[in-house]
Amino acid sequence: MSVRIAIIGAGIMGADHARLVAEDVPGAVLQVVCDASPERAKQVAEAHGAADAATDPFATLRRSDVDAILIASPDETHAPLTQAAIAAGKPALCEKPLSQNSAECLGVIEAEVARGRRFVQVGFMRRFDPSYREMKMALDDGFLGSAIMMHNFHRNVEAPPSFTGQMAITNSAPHEFDVVRFVLGTDYHAISVFQPAGVDASRTGAPVFMVLETQAGQLVNIEVNNNAAYGYDVRGELVGEKGSVFLNAPAPSRHNAALMAFERYAPDWRPRFAEAYRLQNKAFVNFVRTGLFSAIAADAWDGYCAAVAAEAGVEALEAGGRIDIRMAERPSLYRR
Amino acid sequence: MSVRIAIIGAGIMGADHARLVAEDVPGAVLQVVCDASPERAKQVAEAHGAADAATDPFATLRRSDVDAILIASPDETHAPLTQAAIAAGKPALCEKPLSQNSAECLGVIEAEVARGRRFVQVGFMRRFDPSYREMKMALDDGFLGSAIMMHNFHRNVEAPPSFTGQMAITNSAPHEFDVVRFVLGTDYHAISVFQPAGVDASRTGAPVFMVLETQAGQLVNIEVNNNAAYGYDVRGELVGEKGSVFLNAPAPSRHNAALMAFERYAPDWRPRFAEAYRLQNKAFVNFVRTGLFSAIAADAWDGYCAAVAAEAGVEALEAGGRIDIRMAERPSLYRR
Amino acid sequence: MSVRIAIIGAGIMGADHARLVAEDVPGAVLQVVCDASPERAKQVAEAHGAADAATDPFATLRRSDVDAILIASPDETHAPLTQAAIAAGKPALCEKPLSQNSAECLGVIEAEVARGRRFVQVGFMRRFDPSYREMKMALDDGFLGSAIMMHNFHRNVEAPPSFTGQMAITNSAPHEFDVVRFVLGTDYHAISVFQPAGVDASRTGAPVFMVLETQAGQLVNIEVNNNAAYGYDVRGELVGEKGSVFLNAPAPSRHNAALMAFERYAPDWRPRFAEAYRLQNKAFVNFVRTGLFSAIAADAWDGYCAAVAAEAGVEALEAGGRIDIRMAERPSLYRR
Amino acid sequence: MSVRIAIIGAGIMGADHARLVAEDVPGAVLQVVCDASPERAKQVAEAHGAADAATDPFATLRRSDVDAILIASPDETHAPLTQAAIAAGKPALCEKPLSQNSAECLGVIEAEVARGRRFVQVGFMRRFDPSYREMKMALDDGFLGSAIMMHNFHRNVEAPPSFTGQMAITNSAPHEFDVVRFVLGTDYHAISVFQPAGVDASRTGAPVFMVLETQAGQLVNIEVNNNAAYGYDVRGELVGEKGSVFLNAPAPSRHNAALMAFERYAPDWRPRFAEAYRLQNKAFVNFVRTGLFSAIAADAWDGYCAAVAAEAGVEALEAGGRIDIRMAERPSLYRR
Repeated sequence: MSVRIAIIGAGIMGADHARLVAEDVPGAVLQVVCDASPERAKQVAEAHGAADAATDPFATLRRSDVDAILIASPDETHAPLTQAAIAAGKPALCEKPLSQNSAECLGVIEAEVARGRRFVQVGFMRRFDPSYREMKMALDDGFLGSAIMMHNFHRNVEAPPSFTGQMAITNSAPHEFDVVRFVLGTDYHAISVFQPAGVDASRTGAPVFMVLETQAGQLVNIEVNNNAAYGYDVRGELVGEKGSVFLNAPAPSRHNAALMAFERYAPDWRPRFAEAYRLQNKAFVNFVRTGLFSAIAADAWDGYCAAVAAEAGVEALEAGGRIDIRMAERPSLYRR
Repeated sequence: MSVRIAIIGAGIMGADHARLVAEDVPGAVLQVVCDASPERAKQVAEAHGAADAATDPFATLRRSDVDAILIASPDETHAPLTQAAIAAGKPALCEKPLSQNSAECLGVIEAEVARGRRFVQVGFMRRFDPSYREMKMALDDGFLGSAIMMHNFHRNVEAPPSFTGQMAITNSAPHEFDVVRFVLGTDYHAISVFQPAGVDASRTGAPVFMVLETQAGQLVNIEVNNNAAYGYDVRGELVGEKGSVFLNAPAPSRHNAALMAFERYAPDWRPRFAEAYRLQNKAFVNFVRTGLFSAIAADAWDGYCAAVAAEAGVEALEAGGRIDIRMAERPSLYRR
Repeated sequence: MSVRIAIIGAGIMGADHARLVAEDVPGAVLQVVCDASPERAKQVAEAHGAADAATDPFATLRRSDVDAILIASPDETHAPLTQAAIAAGKPALCEKPLSQNSAECLGVIEAEVARGRRFVQVGFMRRFDPSYREMKMALDDGFLGSAIMMHNFHRNVEAPPSFTGQMAITNSAPHEFDVVRFVLGTDYHAISVFQPAGVDASRTGAPVFMVLETQAGQLVNIEVNNNAAYGYDVRGELVGEKGSVFLNAPAPSRHNAALMAFERYAPDWRPRFAEAYRLQNKAFVNFVRTGLFSAIAADAWDGYCAAVAAEAGVEALEAGGRIDIRMAERPSLYRR
Repeated sequence: MSVRIAIIGAGIMGADHARLVAEDVPGAVLQVVCDASPERAKQVAEAHGAADAATDPFATLRRSDVDAILIASPDETHAPLTQAAIAAGKPALCEKPLSQNSAECLGVIEAEVARGRRFVQVGFMRRFDPSYREMKMALDDGFLGSAIMMHNFHRNVEAPPSFTGQMAITNSAPHEFDVVRFVLGTDYHAISVFQPAGVDASRTGAPVFMVLETQAGQLVNIEVNNNAAYGYDVRGELVGEKGSVFLNAPAPSRHNAALMAFERYAPDWRPRFAEAYRLQNKAFVNFVRTGLFSAIAADAWDGYCAAVAAEAGVEALEAGGRIDIRMAERPSLYRR
């Protein structure tokens, strides 16, 4: 039996998920596309052959012809919708963040703990990206020896209007907060944040540079530069005792022209992480069908961890200096 | 409605196709796995959840619960099986070659022409590979100006036992014969073949170097080196008036260790062309569902063209010198 | 007339300079090789055809057949020897550091100011390295827009015995302290230092990670990892408003073998910076002949600036937190 | 004692050699710059501090204040000038070709044989290029196993007016004819030449593609494309039984801008082979001083071998098909 999915939110992310579910994820059926705008819901539903369009997300997720939901609506709706999905006993793939508020994440965790199982997969798709997978494998295989440092670079062509320095921490960096934890297999215990002097942190796209210390003692730094101008570029290097590993971005061809040998950057994240999204969504469908939560995927606890790191990062940005990252106790449901 | 597919042949290629159909191609169901060996048929069927296993390919393709077949059995069975599929009115995705005998290919073409439509998609999956796609796009977009030369390198770690120099032309090079035609949009008119002197062409894995001239006047060369030792490596460069384009192999990470900065080669073709196979099979399923033959995929005519080039190549290898490539008239069914 | 040079110190660095002066720097004659060990002095002198060998550096630099000296003796002798060269009115190319003690550097500066001219060129050879030159050119040409960040990585295969975390700051990082100032054209105003937790800073080769803020507001970070194991590797990226530039290490060939495509790292700095040393020494000989101090080379003031940054770095390592970098007034002699 | 060199010919090549001799080759003095144009001779002489300028090359090479000559005058003067240098008992570094006429090369060889020693070093500077050196080392070290094939690509931005397809063979390819012999350590026995159909071989910059077979049985191909448009690009791959080696061009930096990651090509050969020219000229000066002919450098016999290959190439271009390359007996003077 195919899994019938409702997409909640039909913006750029939601439309892309609708396409994936309809065309690239076996065993799934795009059942409903739901958006506050009935026109947008209808348009995306038709474009990808969904059975229906809708505007009320809570009604949608309770429909009997919907087995699971994929949440791609605005950030502040993520926690309420996952709570509703849990209450309805339906699995949810929730675009990051689970919530920017760590307390709200804990609320989701409590709901899952109360039901005694996980329902929520958080959309930290980088865990499925082949380059991060190979990086993690190099560490797990012992090829690198112990991990010592991890350098991360997160760059966009241009920040959206009103994308402040704080948002670099709360909206961009969570991808790194999560995937670094995934690769290293440890948690953070402190963060320091730097910004180019004279930059107004409330200015659109102001870059930030973070130094995190992990509980296992590694140093992790993350540059977020959302006005990098030249292209969408996510890079990283994991440094171990015996060597290091870099992420490679996919670049299917190389060109010679005009006194240059070049490879192209995409203007946004989609080509860079196309395979990661496909594999993530496939894992979610498999979870819905089998009840087995992916060993790779992020769960609600991972969503909480990213939120805690981001909150400490904002505090470090505002207060200056080094801020401790304090975590709740991890419920046994989330021990892996 | 899902397309019910029977895989004919459960060797390495067949097993890989079974996995793809079962796990990575939406809209398809792995209905039957058929192999001369009942054990192997059963094993692959079970591994990928096929509904049934079988040993008679002709009976299998006529089953009413089979909508289409995927032919991955030994080369000499390809033409008879496609003929049977055409007779049964069922689409077939036929692993390359359609036949090593161009006359046999023409027989398949005649059968399709007689039915007034195409049934056969030939498994020249490189047309779907993102690197060849970007190469073709650079030419079609005018970025390169007119095409002048194309350099191709086809290397395996080790040739199978009894893989002669002729087989480099008849079994390996057809991938290049096809994809070069696809990229350049033209046909061949002559071929010259060189081998390292002192190499016995009947020796296992003897390398060959071919120079083809196209009807549009371009030079194309193809090195086939099936004992390259260091890795599976397919490379190519298309040279135009204004610049050139190289194929990049996927390499998700880069490593530093032991006084080297390195990327890995795979020992065989699967990682290099994983995405190409997935997209090819998806296009075939779409063809079965909609009746619309993919604008990219190879058809029986393309299978014939590759066979003609290979036959001329073998003649050039044996006779020395430059051999003309003479083609039949292309039936209007295959005009694109 | 050729410039007659005495090399002071015939260890690894001194022997390499002797070779360069004897074989690769036109207009120079290797006149004397001086070392505390008479055997070593004689051996290096003979290996490179020096006219004489000696053991007393102060007597050597005053010889009438010596026009200029090249100081490659132990660090603590650098300042006294440059002072003696200034007193003797002879130009000196002094290997880095001028002194690890900034006050001692100021003493050299005072001596030059008193004589009204520069005598000392400091061996920060990276300023002459083609990769740093192209990086600086990309900034100076406006290609990058304003500089925002600079990321630096300094890695050795293995730290010498007793090479502590402080020494990563005082002995390795000065190359970066200097060349970053050269590329950016500005000075530092603060430094923060991080180390992997649980690492004993007095341990051999403990890595350090520094974040510097420049007076122009840029963020600069420097990783020093002298136990990187995999190779000698100096990398860097300069990030501007419009794009970024990376340093490339020279790698004259690329290899395919054993399922890898690789380029080699050298085990030490010599191949990486061979051209930089040659150009630096050529510039020094030109300075001796013409009296014109190279527009690129580091002078005593640059030696002082690197020492001040290193002292603040050690303070930050010990005290934790962010340390201000306070500089003396730059004498007009050193304004460029 | 410094070697006093006269440069014959003050065009682009001659001026570059004057600069090298004056600034980058220790032990040499730029004594005379000689050119048919007295203005040009004087201008280059002054630019690089030569002691004198002159217009008569034969008188110049006989001057008692000239120890050796460097021939950079038009091609047809090369053989007569080397003959005159031999007659005068003075070493000559002769820009390639020694002569385009193999018989004329044999005349130079006879003159040397008659004197019982070598005087002439031919300017096949690629033998000194670090990338070809590493390629050769990989073969000589056994890293590659036996050599099987060598692929060569020779591209310029734009062919000079009246640079025909024949000239691609007679003027461009000799660099490859020589360096391939140097790397492989063998001679040629046949050549086939291809051109894009419809290309008029007398047309400016028409590309050619050559396939050579060596006496040791390897296949060598050479693409010469002097209208490649995108940059000066010399590439090559040596394929052995165990792996392969590529030449890397020097690229000191890598850039990110405008949705591209790129490295630059130079518009001509000078940056690509700057180090090769410096090392070649240094080897020549060493030869003049010590009488020891460089183990790497090309001699008159090598000049002859390149001319023979080019003559066979022109014959193959005109006649079509495969042309044998027949060589004179190598005099014992040139056995290495």
